[in-house]
Formats: sequence, C-alpha cells, structure tokens
Amino acid sequence: MRKVGIIGVGHSKFGVRNDVNMNELVLESFKPALDEANIDLKDISFLVVSNVGLWSSEELPAITIAEYLGLTGKGAMRIEAACASGSAALKVAHDMISSGEAEIVAAIGVEKMNESFTPNVVEIIGRAGNYFWEFENFGMTFPGYYAMYATAYMSVYGATEEDLGEVAIKNHFYGAKNPLAHFQKEITMEDYLKSKYVAWPIKLLDSTPISDGAVTVILASEDAIRKIGSKDVIWIKSIGYSTDTSNLSKRSDFLSLEAARRAAEIAYKKASIDPSKITNLIDVAEVHDCFTIAEILAYEDLGFFKRGEGFLALREKQTYRGGKIPVNLSGGLKAKGHPIGATGLSMIAELTKQLKRQVEKSRQADIKNGWALAHNVGGTGHYAYVTILSTEK
Amino acid sequence: MRKVGIIGVGHSKFGVRNDVNMNELVLESFKPALDEANIDLKDISFLVVSNVGLWSSEELPAITIAEYLGLTGKGAMRIEAACASGSAALKVAHDMISSGEAEIVAAIGVEKMNESFTPNVVEIIGRAGNYFWEFENFGMTFPGYYAMYATAYMSVYGATEEDLGEVAIKNHFYGAKNPLAHFQKEITMEDYLKSKYVAWPIKLLDSTPISDGAVTVILASEDAIRKIGSKDVIWIKSIGYSTDTSNLSKRSDFLSLEAARRAAEIAYKKASIDPSKITNLIDVAEVHDCFTIAEILAYEDLGFFKRGEGFLALREKQTYRGGKIPVNLSGGLKAKGHPIGATGLSMIAELTKQLKRQVEKSRQADIKNGWALAHNVGGTGHYAYVTILSTEK
Repeated sequence: MRKVGIIGVGHSKFGVRNDVNMNELVLESFKPALDEANIDLKDISFLVVSNVGLWSSEELPAITIAEYLGLTGKGAMRIEAACASGSAALKVAHDMISSGEAEIVAAIGVEKMNESFTPNVVEIIGRAGNYFWEFENFGMTFPGYYAMYATAYMSVYGATEEDLGEVAIKNHFYGAKNPLAHFQKEITMEDYLKSKYVAWPIKLLDSTPISDGAVTVILASEDAIRKIGSKDVIWIKSIGYSTDTSNLSKRSDFLSLEAARRAAEIAYKKASIDPSKITNLIDVAEVHDCFTIAEILAYEDLGFFKRGEGFLALREKQTYRGGKIPVNLSGGLKAKGHPIGATGLSMIAELTKQLKRQVEKSRQADIKNGWALAHNVGGTGHYAYVTILSTEK
Repeated sequence: MRKVGIIGVGHSKFGVRNDVNMNELVLESFKPALDEANIDLKDISFLVVSNVGLWSSEELPAITIAEYLGLTGKGAMRIEAACASGSAALKVAHDMISSGEAEIVAAIGVEKMNESFTPNVVEIIGRAGNYFWEFENFGMTFPGYYAMYATAYMSVYGATEEDLGEVAIKNHFYGAKNPLAHFQKEITMEDYLKSKYVAWPIKLLDSTPISDGAVTVILASEDAIRKIGSKDVIWIKSIGYSTDTSNLSKRSDFLSLEAARRAAEIAYKKASIDPSKITNLIDVAEVHDCFTIAEILAYEDLGFFKRGEGFLALREKQTYRGGKIPVNLSGGLKAKGHPIGATGLSMIAELTKQLKRQVEKSRQADIKNGWALAHNVGGTGHYAYVTILSTEK
C-alpha cells in the first residue's frame, strides 16, 4: 500500500454563481491547484469527478469538464454518494494511487444548483431518504428527518433550540472571515430565533443554503512527490466509511448517526489513533453540519465529546478557535455553503490549508500536532466518510 | 500492487423486467454470485454500484440496494461513466483491493429503464453527447452520432448496409442461444433490411433495446482467495481507460473511437501483451455494439483486424465461434440487451463464465489460452474501458 499525498488544492468562491458555467466554475478551482502542485496537465492520468447533478441537463459532466480543462484522453469517471460524494471521490483517487495504478490523480467536486428552478432542487433534496416508502407514503423530507434527530436529542439530553442556534452562530462567525464562503456575515441569537421554521425545531438558520461551487484536490504517490520535489505535502492517513439503512424507520434511535460512528472507528483504526485521545491529536476538524443538529451529533459520533454532551461543549465554546477542538473554522456547510458534490473535497482543501497555516489569520487554527479530520455525511447518515490528514507521512 | 481475482458472478435475465423492482432485480444476480464465491455477507467490505439512473426516482440506489441485500453498514458508492459505468465500477473495486484497502468487494451493475415513461428514456439517451452545444444547438442525438460514424466508414472503406446487418445477425444468432438475453431469436438479412430507419443508415435492428438487468461480480484479494480456498478464479490482468472530446465536432475523424484505441493500448501494455499478436492470445471477447457500426469499429480499435477491414472479417465469419476471434457470443448489447449500468459488468460476468467453460455449449468459445477481453464504451466514445481477464494469475 503506497502512501498518498495532497500536492495541490483549489477552491472556488461558493455562493450563487450564475456568473459562470459549470466548466468555468471548475477551472476557478483547478487552475490554482495545478499551479500549487507544480505539474503539467500531462502528468495527470485520471480525473475523478464528484457531482450529484440531478438538477442538471449535462449528462456527462466528467467528460465536458475534462474537455474544458484540456484533459481529454485521460481516464475519467463520476462518483456519487449523495452529500458525501466528495469523500467517496477522494477515496477512489486515493486507492488508484495507493494500488500503483496511477501516479497523479485530480479529484474534482462540483455542483451548480442555482441554475435550475429552485423548487425543483428543493424537492430533489427533500427526497434524499428512501423514495418509495418513506417519502412517497409518509411524506418524510430531508429537513423532517433531521428534525426527528433534533427533537429526540433535545428531549433526551435537555438541549434547547438556543443550543442548535449556537452552531449556526459559530459557523456564521467563521464564515464571515472566509472570503470563499457563501454567507460572509455573522448572525446573532436574536436573528436565529426569529428565523422561519422549516420543520420544527429546524429553522431556516439551522439549514445550509443551496450553493454553487467547485473544489480540486490533486493527489500524488510518494514516488511522484519525490520526482516533483513537492514540499509541504499533506498526507492521507486513512479514510473510514460506512452506510446505514435507507429507511429511517429501521434505525435503532435518533441520537447518533451510526454510520458516522462506524466510519470514525475504521478511520481511527487504520491511522492507529487511540479514539479516547482523539481531541489531543486532531488540531482542527471540518464536520458535516447540513443542519445544526448534525454538527452536535458529529461531535459525539467522532468521540470529541461524550454522548449527550456535545451541546454543552458548544456552550463553553470548546469548538471555537482556541477551544478543545476547533470545528468548521471555514464556516461549515451552514455559512461556507453546500454545493453537494463539492462539499467533501472542500473539507479536504480547507484542512490542507489549515495544516499548512495558509488560511486567514482570524480563522487559522493553532497547528500543534499537524493532524486534521474531515467528517462527511450523505443523506441522513445513509453514507458516512471520515478522513484523517496529517503533515507527517 | 496486489493481484485481484473474480470469485463469483451472477447475471439476471435481461429484458423488460416490470415483474421485479430494482432491489429484487439486483438480488437475482447477487445471490448466485454470493453462493459461487462461497463467502458470507459479512466478508464483503464495500459495495460499488454502477447505475446511471437518470430516469429513476430513487436517488440513493447504492443505499437501498445495500439495505435490501443485508449489507447495511458496509462502505458504498455509486459510479457513473455513461454506458461504461460497469467497467469504471470494476476498476474502483479492483483498485480498492489491489491497494490493500479491502479484501472482498462486490461490484453491482443495475438499470431499470422500462419502468419510466419510454419517450423520456429515449430523450435522455438521445442527449448522450454534449448537451449545451451539439444537442441544444444542432439537434444531434445519440443514434445520429453513430450514423455519422457509419456513413464515414461506409464511404471511405466501401462497407454497405448489409455489412452492418451482419453484426446484428451474428449477435441475434448468439442471443437466441443465451437464456438471459433480452432477445432470444435469430433475425435474417431480410428482417434487417426491412427494419425502420432511426438515423440513416442506422435502423432499428442496428440499435440496442431499452433493457432492465442486473449483474454482480465479486472480487477478492490473493490473500482472501487463499483463505476461502476458491478454485477456478478468473484474474483481472489489466484495465485500460481513456476519454475523448465531449463535442464530436472536435474529433479528427469518424472512422475510429480514439478513446477505445488508447484504452486498449494501456490495457495491453499493463498486461504485457504484444498488440500485434492479440488475436493469438484472446480466446473470446465482448465488445460494445450499442449500434452495429460500433462493433466493426471495435474490431479495428482493438487491433483484432486492420483499419478498414473489420467488415470484411465479418463477411468471412471470423468473429463467429471457431473464427479468428469470437466476439459477443452472449448476443452483445444488440441481442443480450443494454441495461446501461449493468452492461460493463455483464461483459465481465459473461467472459468469466466463458473462461470457465460454463456457458451453453452452443455458444461456448474454444478456450485455448485462457484469456478474454471486454471493450466497454460510454457515449459516442466519450469514455472507453478495456479489461483483460485470464485464468492465470
């Protein structure tokens, strides 16, 4: 098993990007990644594209992107694992290099959601559970599912709506400092409590926006890294993964995403990490806060805090910069935005920059050990991927 | 790089399968594959699902399939590379094992196309080129593209409509002997010449049907194979890949699929095959005959016959059983059917059985060297994958 390093990342501005088409949006992320990697187009042998695209007329996005970037002739495929597509693409690119099948691979995540008719997009996302049973028969929608998790959590552990609000406030606080974020403004508890309910207790300000965006992560083998002479490489230590039932009615409880717990277990084991000491090791994390409750569950599923205590940690600002473990210093999905196919790779690009101390000073984590973690969920915990990065090989 | 073997395959009946839902259709292929592999569900660590699904309401097919098969908790993702999705999924599963990230992976290809409103499906397939330029502006459709290849080929090399018909006649001849084929009846040249034009010179009988079907291929590492004690393993020697321009107006000519030529070149090189002796080595091949002209181009792109002589070889029945190199003894996409996401893996399942001498006697190739080749194309040569299988490790 060959080790795999990240030699270049690029990240477009997230937001409503009707100023560019999909290919141009990708180029906005690809060009800086290629420059940073210090390689030529011909050095790339495969293009792994993460894109959900259910709202798009473009049926062959990997091909049109390859043509636009000048990568025609290379290998390509598209990967989908709902909102965890970016992490799945990272795994495919990683395994391709680790196996010896490729030396340099570009993983590209992209989503253009705002060019479609918005109610269509909202309906499609709303169906991100089991279509034929729970959506068709019971009218369960995506925010409804997370509302079930929120009410269960609040009822069992005594968290309040204000506790959910603390996630939104933190992530908007950091989003305001990230020039690539969809929303670059802070919000107050008053703003939060006044925002409209989507599915009680989930409010508009608990929810991620509908964003456009693209991210490129260029991966290379140890041999290629040596040849290029890359410095400041960030290494992929492990990628854990798991799935859960399509129907939420088959889940045992609504207090945790079991798939995320299993994905973390695999990732920690592969990277030889002692789960009980995870917060001592990880300097900074990006977690999947598609709704605010999801960030609190992530704290607990990853073992950052004990079960039922995630919201208490937030009251103590333990996941702010300078706290026990800083989380979503990018603004998270909540404020940075959530262009579905790009999200998982956005986490990787952000953490790569964090580990290299290259983000804006006001949101730069203190890098002590050089380790970072990305937690990326698809659907309501249908998919989960956990990726561990490190400055050490 | 660890070697990867096929330890079990399963293949559903292809056709109009409104008697089953997607999950049940998958099970029809999964159960025999699992039985043949002689493993338990718990031994599988990842599920790579090949599915295009643009006509489906099911947004998380990999998850609903995992739940139905009892594989919830395992890793999963969906792969798309148009009509080459199945080969791309095979590559992902292969690399996962080859890298040491997994021991046993199930690659599952499935497509349910007939449950949707047929004109919708036909329109979606019709757009399988570049949407925003050539489809929207010039009204180019999928059969139209292949018609351009056919007219160019006929005009330059002197092939006739009857020569295209010979492909359809051969593939229906073998489809009639394959109980899993969509069409199990022979056709005559008279039937062929009487069939309606879709886009001159492409007729209905040059075209593949709209099929439902599922295929499972279970892959394992050398270590796992040793532990299980699997006998009669078929080994993946190499997988070559390439892409071509999204816009066909940028292609240099219409006499060959350049992506297929490059994919073959990579596959031959990785497997240390001398391209000039390919027909001496390969006992049987499955090629992507989405339209009859595509099979003739495949003969030449793979180096089975010289440029401009593929149709002559067919006149001499060189690709029938007993000929220089038997092709599509399954009936090919033309008669076996083309459930898009399942097609690439269907080729692998068929060739695995051919190499193990397990198909119906009347369509069993003479296995001398124990080598086979699958050629799988997405779009109009937008994607191409070539896979080499062998009985020897």
